[in-house]
Amino acid sequence: MYGAGDVRVENVPDAELVESTDALLRVTRACICGSDLWPYNQMEQTEAGRRMGHEFIGVVEAVGSDVRNVKPGDVVVAPFAWSDGTCVFCREGLHTSCLHGGWWGGDLDGGQGEAVRVPQADGTLVVLPVGEDDTLMPSLLTLSDVMGTGHHAALAARVAPGKTAAVVGDGAVGLCGVIAAKRLGAEQIILLGRHPERIALGRDFGATDVVSERGDEAIERVRELTGGLGAQSVLECVGHDLSVQTALGIARPGAAVGRVGLPQHEHIPTPMSTFYDNVTIGGGPAPARAYVEELLPDVLEGRIEPGRVFDRTGSLDEVPDGYRAMNERESIKFLIEP
Amino acid sequence: MYGAGDVRVENVPDAELVESTDALLRVTRACICGSDLWPYNQMEQTEAGRRMGHEFIGVVEAVGSDVRNVKPGDVVVAPFAWSDGTCVFCREGLHTSCLHGGWWGGDLDGGQGEAVRVPQADGTLVVLPVGEDDTLMPSLLTLSDVMGTGHHAALAARVAPGKTAAVVGDGAVGLCGVIAAKRLGAEQIILLGRHPERIALGRDFGATDVVSERGDEAIERVRELTGGLGAQSVLECVGHDLSVQTALGIARPGAAVGRVGLPQHEHIPTPMSTFYDNVTIGGGPAPARAYVEELLPDVLEGRIEPGRVFDRTGSLDEVPDGYRAMNERESIKFLIEP
Repeated sequence: MYGAGDVRVENVPDAELVESTDALLRVTRACICGSDLWPYNQMEQTEAGRRMGHEFIGVVEAVGSDVRNVKPGDVVVAPFAWSDGTCVFCREGLHTSCLHGGWWGGDLDGGQGEAVRVPQADGTLVVLPVGEDDTLMPSLLTLSDVMGTGHHAALAARVAPGKTAAVVGDGAVGLCGVIAAKRLGAEQIILLGRHPERIALGRDFGATDVVSERGDEAIERVRELTGGLGAQSVLECVGHDLSVQTALGIARPGAAVGRVGLPQHEHIPTPMSTFYDNVTIGGGPAPARAYVEELLPDVLEGRIEPGRVFDRTGSLDEVPDGYRAMNERESIKFLIEP
Repeated sequence: MYGAGDVRVENVPDAELVESTDALLRVTRACICGSDLWPYNQMEQTEAGRRMGHEFIGVVEAVGSDVRNVKPGDVVVAPFAWSDGTCVFCREGLHTSCLHGGWWGGDLDGGQGEAVRVPQADGTLVVLPVGEDDTLMPSLLTLSDVMGTGHHAALAARVAPGKTAAVVGDGAVGLCGVIAAKRLGAEQIILLGRHPERIALGRDFGATDVVSERGDEAIERVRELTGGLGAQSVLECVGHDLSVQTALGIARPGAAVGRVGLPQHEHIPTPMSTFYDNVTIGGGPAPARAYVEELLPDVLEGRIEPGRVFDRTGSLDEVPDGYRAMNERESIKFLIEP
């Protein structure tokens, strides 16, 4: 990406092993993230460009001399942050804060490409017990980010059996938030969104109610649906000021708001009621790596189908149009088959 | 209180039973709260004045016909919010959000007086197994607010055995936060404060380190004390913008910040690192009623001595000077013996 709206498919030098802890991956599936749309709308034009993509599955082509957990030929999923798996934060399950980890892109390869050098391969990659073209690939790919992110929102919102959960946003993360809320036992799941095909998918995933109003009207509607009290668990899956305000506005006293939408503001616009009502605000980038083992069996056994958020598939050459389609809300999420 | 700096001791009509669920209390101990200093500094002058005081212990003089749990002669403690004890929020332990509860003052009596009508007496009051002049009275009185508030901050900050806790603020709440952090097993307790006599008391209560710097220097110092990482649990016991910024700044990735200082701002000034580091912000007014039973045995058996935060005692007539003394930081907390 060279600037807002300027996505190009180019040849770059081949990815190769650098550190002894690296693995080299041939990417077999990747996708475009809702968070990729922020630079797609706002990035200043640059000469150098930025490599894009942080959600991918691939086949290991080569490994460095210190890599033990993966070997050539393994089909592996890479979370959207790489991590060593051994530092104090990784041991606590917060791999996004790994002391020796980092993010894709920048000096590293992006996942929206043919190959990627994976640092800290032992800590980062998880071997999948399937072939590279397994029919479950779309759902398995969501473990790299979007399903883990929905799960993270649900955990931060303290979803538990019998509770009322509200999911703000009907994008791919919000839809995975619905899956996660249902999976964790929420009794009532209110999806706040307004796109008919997304709402339909959300209902399939377990949403019991849909609120298509916005702002104060949305808050009022959620209160009506919750006996006047508000939701006990709120999953904020957008990151806009308005969506955060809505999330806080529908939180009932003692509620937890789990925010995973990349904030487009530096200040959380908290009303005083957030304090008086003892509402907790948690969340952040999901440690997707921490959740792969937990979510994988449900994907493999078909209990959850997060791959259904992909409604369009294309080759690398079609990626620029994928950005456009997602940005114009033609597509929920674009799957790349390089 | 008739306005900033204008506290008067006046005769008002006698408190009396109104509802069948009321109790009438002769106040035997009360105190001035740090939060009383906000109106003491900022309140606009009024004709009507405002009754003050929300922390008190008293002897039951009379009860309404529907009161079952307390009887005349009982020595009881009243939390700083009254509550029915039976609504959905009270059952969840969030008595400050009671559907049929409320706050002292306003149309109700204040605790800084001779007598108080207590609504929802069965839900609000807790009988103390001591005489009205027991030597433990100062510590028992803290169960009405300040000790429960410190405990609430510690719970919201997820203090647990072996963790590093940092307490922002060396006022009475912060000092009780130190007690609570130690009681819940924190291994390292860093007190951020700068008043020598308060710091000394904080060390007695269990603080292992003291940071007297402010702002960025305080943040740097806490990082030095925590291996560069920051604190896992942060208790924000002030409520100023600067103290909240400090609290967020010293939070390590994955930390929880428990805020109980009454916010003097509508927006939480969160740096983006709060999101990227998955820092949770919780807390609010403490449901002190929920904690009385848990904390009472430790007070009765002398394992905690929160009453030591009272460094001055006086009669009702001395209350105006008590406000002045606390406001000028001459006194940590003023105990009233009506």
